[in-house]
Amino acid sequence: MENFDFYAPTKMLFGKGKAVCLPEEMRPFGNRVLMVYGGGSIKKNGIYDTVCGILKDSGFQFWELGGVTPNPKIETVRAGIAMAREHQADMILAVGGGSTVDCGKVIAAGYFYEGDAWDVVKDPSLIAGALPVFTVLTMAATGSEMNPTAVITNQAVHEKQGVHSSHLYPRASVLDPTYLYTLPAIQTAAGVADIMSHIFEGYFKKTEDAYVQDKFSEGILKTCIKWGPVALTEPENYSARANIMWAASMALNGLCGCGKEGKWSCHAIQHQLGAYYDITHGVGLAVITPAWMRYILSENTVGKFVDYAINVWGFPRQPDEFALANMGIDATEQFFVDCGLPVTLSELGIDDSLFEVMAKAAVPYAQLDTQAYVPLHEQDVVNIYRACL
Amino acid sequence: MENFDFYAPTKMLFGKGKAVCLPEEMRPFGNRVLMVYGGGSIKKNGIYDTVCGILKDSGFQFWELGGVTPNPKIETVRAGIAMAREHQADMILAVGGGSTVDCGKVIAAGYFYEGDAWDVVKDPSLIAGALPVFTVLTMAATGSEMNPTAVITNQAVHEKQGVHSSHLYPRASVLDPTYLYTLPAIQTAAGVADIMSHIFEGYFKKTEDAYVQDKFSEGILKTCIKWGPVALTEPENYSARANIMWAASMALNGLCGCGKEGKWSCHAIQHQLGAYYDITHGVGLAVITPAWMRYILSENTVGKFVDYAINVWGFPRQPDEFALANMGIDATEQFFVDCGLPVTLSELGIDDSLFEVMAKAAVPYAQLDTQAYVPLHEQDVVNIYRACL
Repeated sequence: MENFDFYAPTKMLFGKGKAVCLPEEMRPFGNRVLMVYGGGSIKKNGIYDTVCGILKDSGFQFWELGGVTPNPKIETVRAGIAMAREHQADMILAVGGGSTVDCGKVIAAGYFYEGDAWDVVKDPSLIAGALPVFTVLTMAATGSEMNPTAVITNQAVHEKQGVHSSHLYPRASVLDPTYLYTLPAIQTAAGVADIMSHIFEGYFKKTEDAYVQDKFSEGILKTCIKWGPVALTEPENYSARANIMWAASMALNGLCGCGKEGKWSCHAIQHQLGAYYDITHGVGLAVITPAWMRYILSENTVGKFVDYAINVWGFPRQPDEFALANMGIDATEQFFVDCGLPVTLSELGIDDSLFEVMAKAAVPYAQLDTQAYVPLHEQDVVNIYRACL
Repeated sequence: MENFDFYAPTKMLFGKGKAVCLPEEMRPFGNRVLMVYGGGSIKKNGIYDTVCGILKDSGFQFWELGGVTPNPKIETVRAGIAMAREHQADMILAVGGGSTVDCGKVIAAGYFYEGDAWDVVKDPSLIAGALPVFTVLTMAATGSEMNPTAVITNQAVHEKQGVHSSHLYPRASVLDPTYLYTLPAIQTAAGVADIMSHIFEGYFKKTEDAYVQDKFSEGILKTCIKWGPVALTEPENYSARANIMWAASMALNGLCGCGKEGKWSCHAIQHQLGAYYDITHGVGLAVITPAWMRYILSENTVGKFVDYAINVWGFPRQPDEFALANMGIDATEQFFVDCGLPVTLSELGIDDSLFEVMAKAAVPYAQLDTQAYVPLHEQDVVNIYRACL
């Protein structure tokens, strides 16, 4: 096991009706709140009214920044910082999915930075402090509600950039599984693919003896496999929503990836797809992942894929390790199909015209040629894109 | 899944040589440290010299309270509070196992309380603040390094009392697996039994759909089963020590027990053994657990024991559920035997003379008659003690 720090100080308020516990967590920090949310689904499903009611009943003053988009934009962050300053906000409350939470985090950090907010995204060492951030989650996918990361897009310079800082941990996050009941099926499915990908990126690593982490990882994958389809066929199944929601937070709070060496592969490859085409993150990952798995399967990696096939999918051990490994990979792909996710680029209307351009950008993005589980060079990434057609 | 709060704000500094990272975590709180430790094993194995060297090199002033015993005494806590006040300590550094950490926590809390320290143990609502606590762990068992709990003994009133308060979370804990290399085998084994018991207490609960938690629990049990024996036969096997050490923290930081209803059973039954006989906590648990499992096995619980036998021990499914359940229980007992742990009270020199007295105290201690996984009345607890003879 490699040396690591594990730090996850966000207080998680989990369960039906837990939003009522927010005021107690927020009150020590003041009573002026900038509430950040997305495209308005929270106004249709009643979450907006619930949260506003709770804030009002508890005597908080709040101002609203709506309209945060998927792949949240630096312009929205700038607008949020201006509003927070204008109203002397004491804290940020993000009500939404990962994009909304990410946007709220960078507003919180940019608030104390005198220059342009894009500077802190590019160089998190400039973040010397942040307004306290609270979240009410309406998606299960990114894990942003329990980690110190945000991803912001700057279309003016064609960049989408992740930012990490210990100042970005939310203070408290409300996870009410009933808030997922009205989620469109494609978002539920894409969320499950995103959760699984977060696990795959840590599970398939060179470090072989991080056993606790591997068992936790297998547990989260099994959770997705068992409960994802239930959430899709019975959107109001509380057990399904609760397990998927909790799995999402656990998949990217450091628990499963700690003590392991190396960088992520599929996210870098999908990241470039997202930069050039308007596709949902989790959908892109569902396409890339099985192709990547088949591409890196070799004498060196087959043992880990055998573990995966046995421990996650429950296939019986058999003498032909490669056959067993491929059974696990095929099961992964079929699972995404069964969840209603596309598993080819063609289904997404993407052809091979930008493969070289994207591959050229993907390799340095995560040092895939030196830091990946299996090193990948430009031609490798092109080959993986091609296998996804 | 039941509603829950999950909160684990301790920064975990994990790995070989990580004690050097302590000063950075401690410095924001001052430079006057009360260092608390146990019976002196840290002076033999070099950990004392390492930690003192790091403190000195970083310019900390420190005073020492050694001699903390297993089942730490309120007298030691009082002495620590007096020392901390005399030297105007800014923080507590506990170097040792769970007992030392527990003692350090209550010193930290008692520092700000004007009355007697036993008051805050009996009534944690009196804890309005605490000195920051840091730990350097030399055992893998109690999980105290990452949770807000301490257990203190007051011999004058024949009481051993647990105390929980959000002020008691350590700020940061150093977990260096090499610090376990010199641990006596019986302590390693008792630690493994303690870790497994913490999991059993959460795993065998009425709540059936806390799937993520159950998978995490099974992962920690498998970690103990795989790596415990390795740590016993190869005390300097880093992978074994690392996985057991991390499993211990994960077993009692809320991760595996959250979202589930009901109180613990075996700890209450063992607690009374500990009150009347001088036995190690983990050893008592190894004796009680298999007997408790057999006693509560019924039509109502057999499904959970079947899950346990299959998912933890890897037994194949078979039509006779009770046979399968008993295979899991027998495997548990045999595992403790193989670890060199006693599995009968007779081996510990304990006869039946106090069974009724202990049972009478065990039931109200954890409301076993109403809140346990399977309700237990006095006669049930006597029967379990008797099955351990």
